[in-house]
Amino acid sequence: MIDKLIDRIRETGNPTVVGLDPTFGMMPENIKKEAFERCGKTPEAVARMFTAFNRSIIDAIADLVPAVKPQIAMYEQYGIEGLKAYLATIRYAKEKGLIVIGDIKRGDIASTAEAYAGHLAGVDIEGAHFDLWKEDAVTLNPYMGYDGIEPFIRICSEADKGVFILVRTSNPSSAELQDLISGDRPVYQHAAELVSNWGLGAMGRQGYSRIGAVVGATCREQGAELRRLMPHTFFLVPGYGAQGGTGEDLRGYADADGGGIIVNSSRGIIAAYLKDSAYDGTNFAASARKAALAMREDLRSAIS
Amino acid sequence: MIDKLIDRIRETGNPTVVGLDPTFGMMPENIKKEAFERCGKTPEAVARMFTAFNRSIIDAIADLVPAVKPQIAMYEQYGIEGLKAYLATIRYAKEKGLIVIGDIKRGDIASTAEAYAGHLAGVDIEGAHFDLWKEDAVTLNPYMGYDGIEPFIRICSEADKGVFILVRTSNPSSAELQDLISGDRPVYQHAAELVSNWGLGAMGRQGYSRIGAVVGATCREQGAELRRLMPHTFFLVPGYGAQGGTGEDLRGYADADGGGIIVNSSRGIIAAYLKDSAYDGTNFAASARKAALAMREDLRSAIS
Repeated sequence: MIDKLIDRIRETGNPTVVGLDPTFGMMPENIKKEAFERCGKTPEAVARMFTAFNRSIIDAIADLVPAVKPQIAMYEQYGIEGLKAYLATIRYAKEKGLIVIGDIKRGDIASTAEAYAGHLAGVDIEGAHFDLWKEDAVTLNPYMGYDGIEPFIRICSEADKGVFILVRTSNPSSAELQDLISGDRPVYQHAAELVSNWGLGAMGRQGYSRIGAVVGATCREQGAELRRLMPHTFFLVPGYGAQGGTGEDLRGYADADGGGIIVNSSRGIIAAYLKDSAYDGTNFAASARKAALAMREDLRSAIS
Repeated sequence: MIDKLIDRIRETGNPTVVGLDPTFGMMPENIKKEAFERCGKTPEAVARMFTAFNRSIIDAIADLVPAVKPQIAMYEQYGIEGLKAYLATIRYAKEKGLIVIGDIKRGDIASTAEAYAGHLAGVDIEGAHFDLWKEDAVTLNPYMGYDGIEPFIRICSEADKGVFILVRTSNPSSAELQDLISGDRPVYQHAAELVSNWGLGAMGRQGYSRIGAVVGATCREQGAELRRLMPHTFFLVPGYGAQGGTGEDLRGYADADGGGIIVNSSRGIIAAYLKDSAYDGTNFAASARKAALAMREDLRSAIS
């Protein structure tokens, strides 16, 4: 997965991942209307909206970006129907050649971690194999240590999948635990060291591990420092755009060749139509494409 | 929720929560056979097994214990069908008067945390309310700080729900981040202080907050120390039995009246039939009841 991601970033010339994090409030009126007429004011209707919305967004950006990152919480809040939309989104994105990073931030131990690893590994039932979630990679939480990560590392190597483990997040209160100083450095740098070491057992062919890190875009110096500490760890970078980060902030996150990172934008791309004077009531996906092109230019001029 | 939990622990005289963490390997032959005959070797069949198995376990222990804790990962690995079994289990447990703690260990920020809070809050769609998950409480991960917890605190107060936030977990590698020393104390004690403070905004009527903590059973001194540091925080304690903890280890986790904790056992109860010479091929639930009674006695003699 990591080598395919690197290849696709090179082909598109664009280290952008589009966050498919739909909300009900973000749904265009035409999409709402169709779904409510067909399904009433139900979770099924909202799931139908999310699927239709995402398909249009994917059609509009599939040639521009290497990957999408659906945030499972947005779907999970609508229950089973919502999760069906999550799965439908993954299937459609993969049909269009996109790499799918499931933003699930799971974290547990032992047999429970094994079970969550089913997101990447699928399940076997008496000799029959079922790949029920189909993500190419997922995000994970490191608080419980290696026990929670180990089953994922195994499957990453065996089936060429990937994970991105939270190291330094982009939200204001991330400092409460992540910035505590232990020894001569903050907790997030200890997490970085762990993630970097775990990754050595799952290296790809181009110098990066299948075990990546989540490093927020809103902490410029920290990103550059982490790049030095984790030379073989690919960074998934949230916090661009809506959360305040810019391409310029990310220069130090990349390696000497401008590689080693993929930058997420969610609302800034998929909800761009809300701020686009060219929006005519239906062409929300065109606004997303324009926003993705602008982000590509911003990243190209800053990193490379 | 926290007051109802305390009342139910008092009524049953038993601070046990039964972990409903079914695995395919744990399914009794008669349950497997019925489901495979009806659904083939499919995820739907496994989901059917889990639901039937859990219903029997719930019937056998509902008068003995105050609460159950389904671990969502076990269901999630079987996709949509698995999650339907998670929901069916929650519904059935609540019908039988049990409090349901969803072991989901979610953790994210901002609008994503809001979305995950839908587990407790439900969702509103144009004025209609849908309670799609129905847990009374859920477990959360603190790595991202207050931003990830805040939406849950709000709903805990408004709708009398509960959360249990990871502080010190019971697995071997938990020490990698949780035991790092910062200032004069380990990271998990900083987490404890945060959780304790967050809880002050969501106090119940009996001295405990709706914001509880997960504290593993396998660290006796740490548990007692956390009890002193967090006098208003209810503890959910995993790691009893299968993971090695005993009732005696837990004495210090309780308050002066033997309250303030609920102890989880999963495999030790639900898979007790595998070690029970009285198992006759179908009466697995009777073994679970015996194991639950033995655990009640162990906890009563150790804590009270």
